[in-house]
Amino acid sequence: MRSENGKTDVMLEVFGQPVAHIRELGIEVEERLPRGVVMRLPYREELVGNPDTGVLHGGAVTTLVDSASGFAAMASLPELGPVATLDLRIDYLRPAAAGEDLLVRAVCYRLTRRIAFVRAEAYQQSPDDPVAAAMGTFMITGRPGGDPAVSEGGQTAAGAP
Amino acid sequence: MRSENGKTDVMLEVFGQPVAHIRELGIEVEERLPRGVVMRLPYREELVGNPDTGVLHGGAVTTLVDSASGFAAMASLPELGPVATLDLRIDYLRPAAAGEDLLVRAVCYRLTRRIAFVRAEAYQQSPDDPVAAAMGTFMITGRPGGDPAVSEGGQTAAGAP
Amino acid sequence: MRSENGKTDVMLEVFGQPVAHIRELGIEVEERLPRGVVMRLPYREELVGNPDTGVLHGGAVTTLVDSASGFAAMASLPELGPVATLDLRIDYLRPAAAGEDLLVRAVCYRLTRRIAFVRAEAYQQSPDDPVAAAMGTFMITGRPGGDPAVSEGGQTAAGAP
Amino acid sequence: MRSENGKTDVMLEVFGQPVAHIRELGIEVEERLPRGVVMRLPYREELVGNPDTGVLHGGAVTTLVDSASGFAAMASLPELGPVATLDLRIDYLRPAAAGEDLLVRAVCYRLTRRIAFVRAEAYQQSPDDPVAAAMGTFMITGRPGGDPAVSEGGQTAAGAP
Repeated sequence: MRSENGKTDVMLEVFGQPVAHIRELGIEVEERLPRGVVMRLPYREELVGNPDTGVLHGGAVTTLVDSASGFAAMASLPELGPVATLDLRIDYLRPAAAGEDLLVRAVCYRLTRRIAFVRAEAYQQSPDDPVAAAMGTFMITGRPGGDPAVSEGGQTAAGAP
Repeated sequence: MRSENGKTDVMLEVFGQPVAHIRELGIEVEERLPRGVVMRLPYREELVGNPDTGVLHGGAVTTLVDSASGFAAMASLPELGPVATLDLRIDYLRPAAAGEDLLVRAVCYRLTRRIAFVRAEAYQQSPDDPVAAAMGTFMITGRPGGDPAVSEGGQTAAGAP
Repeated sequence: MRSENGKTDVMLEVFGQPVAHIRELGIEVEERLPRGVVMRLPYREELVGNPDTGVLHGGAVTTLVDSASGFAAMASLPELGPVATLDLRIDYLRPAAAGEDLLVRAVCYRLTRRIAFVRAEAYQQSPDDPVAAAMGTFMITGRPGGDPAVSEGGQTAAGAP
Repeated sequence: MRSENGKTDVMLEVFGQPVAHIRELGIEVEERLPRGVVMRLPYREELVGNPDTGVLHGGAVTTLVDSASGFAAMASLPELGPVATLDLRIDYLRPAAAGEDLLVRAVCYRLTRRIAFVRAEAYQQSPDDPVAAAMGTFMITGRPGGDPAVSEGGQTAAGAP
């Protein structure tokens, strides 16, 4: 499978298929990290929450954090496999500025047999001036013989196959 | 201001303007509660995360929870005014089933001078079988003379004016 | 095994042994619920955070919420067994008043094969005027053949055997 | 005011008074950081949750994280003043090992006019092998003329004056 875009290939490699929702928003993989990812959401008028100021609506930040965190959890597994979001907490530190792309850096900082713990920061110009910070836990569901969706609780991570 | 849809009028009344992102997803106000709201996201193919199963992607749940929680915070103020999301935690209890609308009931269960505490549940057939549960805090930013976005931290709630 | 106190017997039954830390604080089981518990922390001078006001320090609220939530997770299992706290979020709604006992009601509202989702409220005079609200996830570790502490991540729940 | 212990002096300086609960547990200030603190809880038999393994009970981790986070919020203010915990999320990454002190590094990584955002990690031998990770928000209550406890919601931070 080939795409015109090397960045998208990484997403295919990890998610296993084109992910409609992520593609629709225009989210791209900016950089693949050893146990994580940097994703970019290019600025678009349609993502504005407040037409007077041009500030991005909160849902855009949340969706990008959610997607990147799930990606980081999957990408950190010894063998690629599905994960389910158990929970996610996001702190909103400041409004996302108008006219600027949004980036999220998500890293799986601890991996146990069943659980991936992920941390993420959203930023625009610089990681040192974050827009949002997040922590989440993901259940590793792809063990042989399981029917993860029914038996494990949690929810297929944003964009997961 | 008139719309063709009584439900949408409630959103205008609270949010003060049409909200592009919310409208785009097709989110509707199902019921206005004394200190909260029930919102509905009609099922659509475009919101599917996994084509094999038809299960909604996680971002859809997150966005609806986010929107309804911000709405509940705003709607609970003595006078309507803007709020900024400080933080949100979502627990994902089970995957959202294919082919069914998603509903979120969000209520502001404690309001102080500066902070609104909100709880929300997402469900499909019945509130007794939730898909997700959430807790969030919102800062009440609409005090006279303030420039909330710059000075208070937090982020304009999803869909807030 | 007999104790002088029926309430303590319930704790022994669930936790499997006397729990030094919980006993030291004077925490009691007030009521056993189908999938949860109400625990009580009797007011004591030693738990005061601010001598001028007599207000309980935050750690006392946190510890009681933590203990009751872990208890609820364990008590909701088909067969009693150990659980490990994965994460806990507490919202502090108002200061705990001086001179009054603190109660926490914790319920496991969803149980999957591996995860128990718990919600809790802390209050004094009435559950309708809560001091704090909490959500947590617990991993069910007591599957045969496992060495939960090492392999599963998480942490032995407060007071768990 | 003098104490026999330089470390305790820092606590007095920030908290404004001896803090009974913190002193009782034996918590010490290990290092003062520009916008935070490293605190240490020396290992003691009384803090053990499971006598068979010697593993610290979860409440000890929670209390230390709570205390250090509140300290970091206070210590980051331009002028020392009280803060109230709004919410705290703790992820438990692995059990705390027997026989070893517990340390928590807490830093206020964003400060707005009303809110301090704090991050903390608990560890034993090395910060690179954390026991727990946490995020919290604190309301800055010490504005002139206010009665923070009543009007602002939240809760006096663990050990705060």
